[in-house]
This record gives sequence, structure tokens and C-alpha cells, in this order.
Amino acid sequence: MAEKVTLAVFSGEMDKAMAAFNIAIGAAAMGMEVSMFFTFWGLNIIKKNKRPIKSRGMMRKMLNTMNRGGSKRLPLSKFHMLGLGKWMMGKLMQDAKFPSIEEQIAIAKEAGVKFIACTTTMGIMDITKDDFITEVDSFAGVATYLAEAREGKVNLFI
Amino acid sequence: MAEKVTLAVFSGEMDKAMAAFNIAIGAAAMGMEVSMFFTFWGLNIIKKNKRPIKSRGMMRKMLNTMNRGGSKRLPLSKFHMLGLGKWMMGKLMQDAKFPSIEEQIAIAKEAGVKFIACTTTMGIMDITKDDFITEVDSFAGVATYLAEAREGKVNLFI
Amino acid sequence: MAEKVTLAVFSGEMDKAMAAFNIAIGAAAMGMEVSMFFTFWGLNIIKKNKRPIKSRGMMRKMLNTMNRGGSKRLPLSKFHMLGLGKWMMGKLMQDAKFPSIEEQIAIAKEAGVKFIACTTTMGIMDITKDDFITEVDSFAGVATYLAEAREGKVNLFI
Repeated sequence: MAEKVTLAVFSGEMDKAMAAFNIAIGAAAMGMEVSMFFTFWGLNIIKKNKRPIKSRGMMRKMLNTMNRGGSKRLPLSKFHMLGLGKWMMGKLMQDAKFPSIEEQIAIAKEAGVKFIACTTTMGIMDITKDDFITEVDSFAGVATYLAEAREGKVNLFI
Repeated sequence: MAEKVTLAVFSGEMDKAMAAFNIAIGAAAMGMEVSMFFTFWGLNIIKKNKRPIKSRGMMRKMLNTMNRGGSKRLPLSKFHMLGLGKWMMGKLMQDAKFPSIEEQIAIAKEAGVKFIACTTTMGIMDITKDDFITEVDSFAGVATYLAEAREGKVNLFI
Repeated sequence: MAEKVTLAVFSGEMDKAMAAFNIAIGAAAMGMEVSMFFTFWGLNIIKKNKRPIKSRGMMRKMLNTMNRGGSKRLPLSKFHMLGLGKWMMGKLMQDAKFPSIEEQIAIAKEAGVKFIACTTTMGIMDITKDDFITEVDSFAGVATYLAEAREGKVNLFI
């Protein structure tokens, strides 16, 4: 049986997403079985790059407009500078022929990495399955995460 | 012997605390033995919701006033917006019948999760045992943490 | 064979660096074999405390001036307050006879902790080997990290 790697992706920033996908893709390339559990702000990484999602109630509307997400809209955790730093980082990645987050998502899927979205956060923030990209394999809670993590050789919280 | 889970809780934000307790409570429910090591800003989660603590010297006074802590005073790591975002998140959690941090602390304790406060940070910031809620099981340093983590199936830094 | 600990140090803040070194030094003292993989902003911790590094192109110049790094220039993740909070934290550490980050680096090396700098980030940000302190043992990518982490008893992402 292949060795397991689980990544709990809590953060929704571009730089943390890069680190997560870099590890996920690397581990899959080494023959390991990788599951990425996206939770809380991390859900933004796997949201569609489309229109803001529709939500019930004013507060959820506000939250889901501000917190719109999508792989192209992730901020930097440092030096975001209203988008300038993020734009620069995108350019530097391009220059270094480093794939964008969107491309990393595709590469990870191609390599067999599993994407799981956290249903607990979805409930609290009123995000529905339709709000996510089709690359998401399943929707689950903490019990599913722990069932995999307890078998994991490498478990990280990012 | 039950499988062990250790969580090093470094961050003092409401959202990270929710993730930590969600994993802790889930793991305990699955029969795993869970230890939460609260360190640095994470200590705020298990401070009393009372008066600012008394400290020696002006700098410690300033730090411990700004960094007052308590489960009801934790900011959000994103969209805190001077408390508005945090208030909204509290409302959303209520709406979704999700327990507050205070309630999660009680549930975790009920489920047998152990709370350990980091003595190294306590020393640097001049926080005393009296500043913490009574749910804290023990006070210890990194050696205690590592002794548990080396036996852990799942070890996360949050 | 000694038990392994791996720390992926993604964050470049003084407080997170303290947590990382505290764990690294503690684990080494307990006879464990510790590798610290510095990546992304974490590279700042092991940059020289000297002049800003020279980079090709305006964007890299900007980034590497803002993101200058060096163990003495790390901000706090909370209450940095344009340097005041960081200065206070330095004082509190001194008062508590707690070693500075610079001293912690020396202690960790003395204890046999291995420092590895992430070549992927170095490529994107145009950082060269000369920009790092001489304590760095090697320069490597994610495959090297995973080869160690899969053997690790404790693997943390900080």
C-alpha cells in the first residue's frame, strides 16, 4: 500500500497554496497517496473563478462577497499591497517558468492528488457544492480527515 | 494503547482555534488520545475571560493589556475588521448551531482532551498559572511536548 | 537509528522562528535528528544580516529590498507595530534570559540541527546561495524534504 500524505489546507493565501501544492505534487510524483483537505479560508483555493456565490441572509452575502475566492484571486500572506505584491509574485512565478495556482491544481489532479472540501466550514459560511471547481473529489468532515491522517506518514496543517 | 494526536496551538485567532478544537474533539470522539499544547499567542485561547492580568514592568503591562486574550476576545485571522468580522463569524456559527469557542473548550474537556500551557512563553510574557482557565491540565515545556509528539500518529502545528 | 523530526519553516516571523527553534533545539537535546527546511518567507530567518541582496530586474529588486530578511530583522506576526512590538519582545526575551534568534541559530547548529534552504523559492525570488548565512547545510527542493519527512516521527509545517 502506498504511503499516505495528508494536507489540511486552512489558509487561503497564494503563497501558502503554492507550498501546499508543491508538497502535494512532489509527494504524488514519489508514488505517495496524497489527500488535500481544504477547510476555512483554504476553501477559497478550490472555489470557482466565477461570480460571487449566492447566499441566504445579509451577513453571509457580505462574507461571501469579500471572501469570494477562486484560484486567481488569492492574496499574498505578506506584501499583498492591495494586489500589487500578488501581481508581482505572479510575474516572478511566470519568469521562473513556475506554474500558476490554476495550473498547479491541474497538475495535482493529473498526478492523482485527492481534493476534499470541509463540510463544516461550508455549513457555517453557507457555501454550496456548486461553488467549487469540478476537480473536488468529495465533501467531508473531520472524521474523514482523521481517518486518513491516522494512516498518514506525513500530516501537515498549512 | 490509544493512538495519540498532538496539536501545538501557536495561533490565538478564533478561526484557527475552531480548526484546532474541531480536530481535537473529532479525534477524541474516535477514541484517540488528544493533547493540545498552547504556546505563544495560542495561550490567549485558554486565558480567563476576566480582567487584564497583572504584570511586572511597563512593557509586560502593555503587552498583557493589548494581548489580553480569553476565549471570547479572540480576533479572526482574516476580515477581523475591528471586531465586525469576528462578530459576524460568531453569528454565523450560532445560526449554524455551531458551538462557540467557550463551548468547544467545554466539549473538548468533556471528551478527555488534555490542555497543556507552554511554560516558556509564560516566562517570557510574564503570565502566571492564575491567568488561565481551570480546564488547563498542566504546565510544561518543549520536552513534554516532544515526548508526546514522538508517540503521536497525527502531530499538527496550528 | 535516531528518530527524525522535520520542520518546514514557511513563515518569516520572529515569533514563529522562536517556536521552530525551540522545538528543534529541544528535539536535538533529546537525541532526535532534526532537519529544518526553510522555504518562502522562512528563508528570511537564515539570510545574512547584511546589505540587501542584488537581484536582476526591478521587481526582484523591490521584493528583495522589502523582504530583506536576516535574523535581526524578522517582524512579529502580531503587535509588530512598526517595530515597537518586536523591540519589546526582544527586551522581554532578554529579561527572561531567553536567547535571541541569532543565538538560537547558533545553539541549534551546535546541537546538530540541519538547515536546508528551499531552491524552488530561491529560483522564484532570485535569491542566491551567497545571500544565506554559512550555517546553511544544503540547498534542496521538495523531494529532499519529503524523503526525510516520510521517515519522520514528527513533521510540522510552521
